[in-house]
Amino acid sequence: MTQLHPEVRTPDAPTADGTAAGDGALALDLAAVEERLGAFFDARISAASAYDPSYRRLWESARDAAEGGKRIRPRFVLLAYRGLGGAERDVACTAAMAYELLHTAFLLHDDVIDGDTVRRGRPNTAGEFAADAVARGASSHRARRWGESGAILAGDLLLHAAATVLARADTDEWTRERLLDILDHSVFVTAAGELADVALSERLGDDAPALEDVLAMTEHKTAAYSVSGPLMTGALLAGGGEDVLASLAEYGRLVGIAFQLGDDLLGVFGAEDVTGKSIVSDLRQGKETSLIAYARGTARWEEVAPSLGRGDLAPHEAGRLASVLEECGARRFVERLLADHVDRAVALLDSPSIPPALAEPLADVARSCIGRIV
Amino acid sequence: MTQLHPEVRTPDAPTADGTAAGDGALALDLAAVEERLGAFFDARISAASAYDPSYRRLWESARDAAEGGKRIRPRFVLLAYRGLGGAERDVACTAAMAYELLHTAFLLHDDVIDGDTVRRGRPNTAGEFAADAVARGASSHRARRWGESGAILAGDLLLHAAATVLARADTDEWTRERLLDILDHSVFVTAAGELADVALSERLGDDAPALEDVLAMTEHKTAAYSVSGPLMTGALLAGGGEDVLASLAEYGRLVGIAFQLGDDLLGVFGAEDVTGKSIVSDLRQGKETSLIAYARGTARWEEVAPSLGRGDLAPHEAGRLASVLEECGARRFVERLLADHVDRAVALLDSPSIPPALAEPLADVARSCIGRIV
Repeated sequence: MTQLHPEVRTPDAPTADGTAAGDGALALDLAAVEERLGAFFDARISAASAYDPSYRRLWESARDAAEGGKRIRPRFVLLAYRGLGGAERDVACTAAMAYELLHTAFLLHDDVIDGDTVRRGRPNTAGEFAADAVARGASSHRARRWGESGAILAGDLLLHAAATVLARADTDEWTRERLLDILDHSVFVTAAGELADVALSERLGDDAPALEDVLAMTEHKTAAYSVSGPLMTGALLAGGGEDVLASLAEYGRLVGIAFQLGDDLLGVFGAEDVTGKSIVSDLRQGKETSLIAYARGTARWEEVAPSLGRGDLAPHEAGRLASVLEECGARRFVERLLADHVDRAVALLDSPSIPPALAEPLADVARSCIGRIV
Repeated sequence: MTQLHPEVRTPDAPTADGTAAGDGALALDLAAVEERLGAFFDARISAASAYDPSYRRLWESARDAAEGGKRIRPRFVLLAYRGLGGAERDVACTAAMAYELLHTAFLLHDDVIDGDTVRRGRPNTAGEFAADAVARGASSHRARRWGESGAILAGDLLLHAAATVLARADTDEWTRERLLDILDHSVFVTAAGELADVALSERLGDDAPALEDVLAMTEHKTAAYSVSGPLMTGALLAGGGEDVLASLAEYGRLVGIAFQLGDDLLGVFGAEDVTGKSIVSDLRQGKETSLIAYARGTARWEEVAPSLGRGDLAPHEAGRLASVLEECGARRFVERLLADHVDRAVALLDSPSIPPALAEPLADVARSCIGRIV
């Protein structure tokens, strides 16, 4: 999944309980989301004790999977909610929690699909369970099966929970139906994007994935449930009409793509101490990024192709590839594409249906996609 | 997942639209469920066309995964609903459909967990997608990854849909909350059972799984979402109180176990033309059944152990093992245990809160667990 690093701040808006506005309100809202997540997991870890001991461990692992995230989706829910004058912490935080559970479920299943056993720098559920099995003398094959089983089931539990948590939101019937519509669509689109991502990485389509396919995959896989869905959800809960929802949906689409373009640039040109990963990573994976898709159409492609996807690519070779990706115009192209998406996203915010209290922080978020390379 | 073969018939009860009672009403209800399922998949297959072509194929495959089932869970929803005098086809069929989507999701993920590519005698989603990849020249490793990715995502989509379909049921807020409670619990318990099943089959617990662990795993993995959940759901929708719900929950638990015990017997002693599978299957798999768990505690175990789990077990060897399982008392024990579960389930139905219109068909279902070996 795309790492999102926006600077999401809520606007200066009074809260229903009269507490400090602005960042103080966001902090309280986020604390409430953490509290709900904590209570959610505590209750289930406790209930799991009635079953096979492995089940309690599964829920503890699911809780671990939900920890350490930046809470981007909840922030977007809350930003839209507060920005449109919403004043009921309870329902907004419930919805925010639902999207974080959804995100965690996607991470868990993503890791199974990609065969990854590490996430956020430590073993994920699949890795934890596999290590557990190895410690009990299981073969690596059996350990992997155990790990993947745990991760699939943990993801199922959180995916299911996201839907029922949202369905229980304290709101009227019409709003609940719309909330579920937005969630349904977010899940529908994300699955399409994830499938396209696997297809691209398995080279199961054409040999030369077009840039628009790479961007479409990105938009579907990440933007819908990470930006558009949460923003629309917060806006809906605050009484936003279809016009503001439509604007936020489009904003989300553009910003989601912008984030990925920024990530693609960081992946090759970003400093490791900023990104937390070495620049060889994307190149070794042979990851199908916007840079690669562009470079494929240039005369310098033959210098790139042989090294791409080589698991033993050395740092100096990665540095040379980075230079080629710059010289062939890929870097400049992607930077311009990123800037264009940001400009279009910001332009959308210039609308009578979007008050400054919402437009300003969203413009900040969009602009934060640029210049992430230090 | 356990194959369930109950004879589920609805009682003689007039329907709201005045159509024929009894089996005629069930047929109409089931037809309505099929119609809803059809419409559900048609809409999504159509919407999927807007994405990568593989996404339309994914939804077509998901629809295939939902076909060919006996609709046991919907039947239980409808049986309880009509048996308690429910007269609104729409809400009952919506709930019935949700449980069938849930069941299909579990089958899809189960097959990934078990590494199976065939279900109901034909390729499942994982198998279909894998074959697709092979046809495009992918290695078997990549094809398997593609297949599993498709099956994980298809399962996710249906698991999500089951929850939102149920959440949208046309009922009051209190009933919706209870419906979601029942669904939450069904999913929670099923995941516990599935994890325990994997643990048992991977021998990750003690070397000698106790019979009660095998039965607990069965109960959790199947009974909750296949019998208890659907019955409670139908009863709730028809206005049933907590006493009848509690009775149905316990009935479901007992009957779910009884079904598995019957399946265990069929797996070793049943005629292949009846069961659709050869008797070597369970033995070759080394499946941890009630028969095996019992035999482990007898003096004849040494004759069983070496052959169990041997993928090349010949039919005559399987026949010999079957004789040992009979002679050591395992068959008789399991048959008695099965009969005991059936008796207790039927006894539960003798309650003032359960009218004859519901008690009679449920008693028939319970008794149909016995004597399935022809």
